[in-house]
Amino acid sequence: MIERIKSDSSKPQPVLVVGSVAFDNVITPHGSQEGILGGAASYCSFAASYFAKPLMVGVVGNDFGEEHLDRLRSRGIDLEGLQRDESGPTFFWKGQYHENFNRRDTLDIQLNVFEQFRPELPTNYKSAPYVLLGNIHPALQAHVLDLLEGDGAYVLADTIDLWIDIERDALLSLIKRVNLFVINDSEAEELTSEKNVILAGQKLRQMGPETVIIKKGEHGAILFHEDGLFALPAYPVTDLRDPTGAGDSFAGALLGRLASRDRRDFEAIKEAMVYGTAVASLTVEAFGCDRLESAGNSVIAQRVQELRQLIQVEQ
Amino acid sequence: MIERIKSDSSKPQPVLVVGSVAFDNVITPHGSQEGILGGAASYCSFAASYFAKPLMVGVVGNDFGEEHLDRLRSRGIDLEGLQRDESGPTFFWKGQYHENFNRRDTLDIQLNVFEQFRPELPTNYKSAPYVLLGNIHPALQAHVLDLLEGDGAYVLADTIDLWIDIERDALLSLIKRVNLFVINDSEAEELTSEKNVILAGQKLRQMGPETVIIKKGEHGAILFHEDGLFALPAYPVTDLRDPTGAGDSFAGALLGRLASRDRRDFEAIKEAMVYGTAVASLTVEAFGCDRLESAGNSVIAQRVQELRQLIQVEQ
Repeated sequence: MIERIKSDSSKPQPVLVVGSVAFDNVITPHGSQEGILGGAASYCSFAASYFAKPLMVGVVGNDFGEEHLDRLRSRGIDLEGLQRDESGPTFFWKGQYHENFNRRDTLDIQLNVFEQFRPELPTNYKSAPYVLLGNIHPALQAHVLDLLEGDGAYVLADTIDLWIDIERDALLSLIKRVNLFVINDSEAEELTSEKNVILAGQKLRQMGPETVIIKKGEHGAILFHEDGLFALPAYPVTDLRDPTGAGDSFAGALLGRLASRDRRDFEAIKEAMVYGTAVASLTVEAFGCDRLESAGNSVIAQRVQELRQLIQVEQ
Repeated sequence: MIERIKSDSSKPQPVLVVGSVAFDNVITPHGSQEGILGGAASYCSFAASYFAKPLMVGVVGNDFGEEHLDRLRSRGIDLEGLQRDESGPTFFWKGQYHENFNRRDTLDIQLNVFEQFRPELPTNYKSAPYVLLGNIHPALQAHVLDLLEGDGAYVLADTIDLWIDIERDALLSLIKRVNLFVINDSEAEELTSEKNVILAGQKLRQMGPETVIIKKGEHGAILFHEDGLFALPAYPVTDLRDPTGAGDSFAGALLGRLASRDRRDFEAIKEAMVYGTAVASLTVEAFGCDRLESAGNSVIAQRVQELRQLIQVEQ
């Protein structure tokens, strides 16, 4: 039983997380590592685990050792929804970051068991009140929504440029069904054909999701909500090591924080973005999930406090 | 006698502003205009005029008509320090903005009377308690400091990449003498050889100025002060017309606000950045100084309020 970060709610809720589980080889200007535990579901679940119990949905292959399952279990992540496919190895990605980490190239990608992945939900997952659709094919994201019972879940969806390029219609149909759509600035421009980030966010809301967050990397994130706008800077990271999983960590912590408070309103989303930003800043300070996984509640609380001070102006 | 934006000080102070006065031809993706009143001193003075009395130091040529002087006078700007050189025309700049305004090319530049400009201070300017060294040759900026009486002035200096390229030593020597150095992100990287904006800001402080602000355009600005960091997003502009003078307007309003409160502490600088950001957002919504000059106190107050809401998180 792990001790999660306290919230003001008497009934913290679990978070269903669906996404890829992967082994990554990552090359950065400062070094490289191979066989890193990665994938959206891993980062999202680790991040959410500081706030709420993650119910993890994904698939791993015949090379996914017990030590990796133990890492996830030790953060209190429920693995009943994690399928094991013995027919092949786990999803594999190899990428390289250049210069100031502003550009990333995918050097190799092997879907492996992920190619045949069809999410299934254990019975107790189907009523999850908070659902994080990590970056996978939008049709699979929609499939997970079809499996949910009732329509009371608060759904956050993430995506990447690949799906905008090759599955735009499926993505456009998916985002009509989500409450909170999280996307980065270049993807938002691609999806809306709008260069101005404020107009892009407004357009995205008109495309379906009631709430949109546009992530701007080192420049922070902007929230578009019917009650208003909110702009949050990034945590001032000075020791960037590996940006992989930053967006997943942001989304996981954000939705985990909402679930732990069981709130979905504008003020709660703003507050949860501070937590998401704090947790993402930890992820990027080491390769893979290492720093994210081991950070601890007090370091997160400290960064949240620093972020609050960073944006504090006297009235 | 114009009515300035109220401050909490019983003794608002004037602001000495030195910089170029120019006629600009500006081409943008949305249109172009010729013969616009521009230059750092114009933008800085107009912006400062909402808060404090600007004492303007610069030079104009034989083509600078009374109508332009009247525009400046009608904002309560003191022109005793504005020299007229009948030997030639006013400084001229022609520039073009591309695509999303992210890139600017100088198409033509004619120094004209600015080439022989040597700032002179009327007697009552020499004890100005707030001094804005707009972007001109760092040796001229230093010359203005030499003319000041006493060493009690709070000095803000701005620069551009040109001086980093060709007058680095003069610039490095100048910034040791200023209290607040304002620079944009690409210039900060160029001057410090540091790509990480947080580390660049820290390095700049080690180079002399006690306080540094790095401007990031649409991504806002970061304040580096001995009492801490402060990050402020840009105002969410959706109708960008002409970015010329945005940085000058930011600096002018910022120092004007400090002068109007007669404060120089961390909290006051943060609060003044909100005003600077609000005023700069108005400047870019029209060509030249048009919107800046005519905005009015209540529009500025409204944008300040919107900016405060934009960064508001419940405790």
